Amino acid sequence: MTVSIGIDVGGTKILAVRIEDDEVVAQELFSTPGKDMVGSAVAAVRELWTDDVSSVGAGVAGLVRFVDGVFVWGPHVPGSNVPVREVLEREFNVPAVVDNDANAAAWAELQLGAAQGRNDVLLVTLGTGIGGAVIADGDVYRGSSFAGEWGHMHYQANGLQCDCGKRGCWETVASGPALARIGREFNALNPEGQLAQRLRQGDFTAETITRAADAGDETARGLVSQVGAAFGQGLCSLIAIFDPEMIVVGGGLGSVGESLLGPARRVAADALHGGSHRPLPPIVVAGLGPESGAIGAALLSQERLARAS
Amino acid sequence: MTVSIGIDVGGTKILAVRIEDDEVVAQELFSTPGKDMVGSAVAAVRELWTDDVSSVGAGVAGLVRFVDGVFVWGPHVPGSNVPVREVLEREFNVPAVVDNDANAAAWAELQLGAAQGRNDVLLVTLGTGIGGAVIADGDVYRGSSFAGEWGHMHYQANGLQCDCGKRGCWETVASGPALARIGREFNALNPEGQLAQRLRQGDFTAETITRAADAGDETARGLVSQVGAAFGQGLCSLIAIFDPEMIVVGGGLGSVGESLLGPARRVAADALHGGSHRPLPPIVVAGLGPESGAIGAALLSQERLARAS
Repeated sequence: MTVSIGIDVGGTKILAVRIEDDEVVAQELFSTPGKDMVGSAVAAVRELWTDDVSSVGAGVAGLVRFVDGVFVWGPHVPGSNVPVREVLEREFNVPAVVDNDANAAAWAELQLGAAQGRNDVLLVTLGTGIGGAVIADGDVYRGSSFAGEWGHMHYQANGLQCDCGKRGCWETVASGPALARIGREFNALNPEGQLAQRLRQGDFTAETITRAADAGDETARGLVSQVGAAFGQGLCSLIAIFDPEMIVVGGGLGSVGESLLGPARRVAADALHGGSHRPLPPIVVAGLGPESGAIGAALLSQERLARAS
Repeated sequence: MTVSIGIDVGGTKILAVRIEDDEVVAQELFSTPGKDMVGSAVAAVRELWTDDVSSVGAGVAGLVRFVDGVFVWGPHVPGSNVPVREVLEREFNVPAVVDNDANAAAWAELQLGAAQGRNDVLLVTLGTGIGGAVIADGDVYRGSSFAGEWGHMHYQANGLQCDCGKRGCWETVASGPALARIGREFNALNPEGQLAQRLRQGDFTAETITRAADAGDETARGLVSQVGAAFGQGLCSLIAIFDPEMIVVGGGLGSVGESLLGPARRVAADALHGGSHRPLPPIVVAGLGPESGAIGAALLSQERLARAS
């Protein structure tokens, strides 16, 4: 039996899992409001540590150099050029891997989730922003290091301000904050509407809007479908670029399901380059849920262990 | 010595080369105004044929299924679902490969051109439209079949009509026709300008404008740099998506050089995701010129021959 710990390091939270072979046997969520990302990462691993753990993996939101496990930079996670792998290996004295969080999640989806048995897959995570990872020929493809940052592809000239510091990135129109924003805009224009009677201005969040959509509110469904359409237009670009076998959609907003993915698929099918001569690849919801990044990080560390032996 | 013939099949022309090992020893350009693409392809190969030819390769502009060498569809080349490889192998009785023209050109650039010694490279061709190919881990990456069609990534909501039938694709603002269009628009607004005095309305083509830019005309330089900026913005998306080691720019307009690539690099550097934490990959002009597609097709056919033996 191979025992590993994987952690998924986000802006304010770390999710840690302990896996035995490929079964999750324990997991814990930590708040990390402080600036010491690597200290928080070490503390999270320690909580699930036992002496039979043979490898540790970390997925971190942002630009990670996989080859030496350095967190280079990310808009949401504190620090830059942090040698996370070196610190983990020194602290725990087992092999460690550190990768982008979406790469880790994609690896988990390929091994255990929606992409099992596939070779050429894109994972697209839709939440606070858009992240992603490329599976090419059955392995994670990183380019020089940072492939998959398509949340920041150009989507709109003179577009909205993005968290990354630029304007008009895809995630400015397709993300949780984008849904909340169009909700508030709609509400300001229609203060007497049914949705406005149930939600105050400050209550327009991605979560409340998607919940209202699920409950059948037509206005909320329209707002979700507007974000779904922008999401689908970007997916369509990714299909022209990669021609993947399958797109797996993860992330908090991505897991909303058909109210969002239905419109996304319709727009993607309509805008597909050469669309009458090729099928639209399946666009499916991730199989593993929010633990996928931590699970994938643990599995990547097992992979490294296997390759080393 | 291995003797191969490679052809590059465009909308109205076929370029054929005969190569001995990796030296071009003969080449010929054919006009193909008719509808019988595969007949024209066979005729072009036959012109350079001798009995010591051991393989034939074809690069075709459009969607090509490499695995069986079928030309599926393209906006500029007549026919759909044409079994080009089957026809070539039947006619010439040697192994043949048929690939997308940009994939073939990228393979040539990797073997003999600007991308020698690299592993992760994008070829972006800029001409009538934008084409491209992905080199991943030292090999052509095709996804399911059609990867690299980023000329049709979404660039502008409610944008201009594209030849592909959709609107707002990247190539509607970055291509030879786009340069000619903004030239005519500028000219209509500034009929007394210096450039207008030298060029009549109908003379505003990508070629005349780039020639005027090269000769130092400031207006023409401004027009070229406007297209360069739109080109650089899209390249920047591709860098976020692939994080390549290098971008090789080919195609007629791509070979114009610094008057276009200078602005493209500046915009790409400025818009690069995490730009203060990573270098901009080199953006260089292709090394092989307009023969690269035909050469690459021949080399791919040699590769297939080598793998089979």
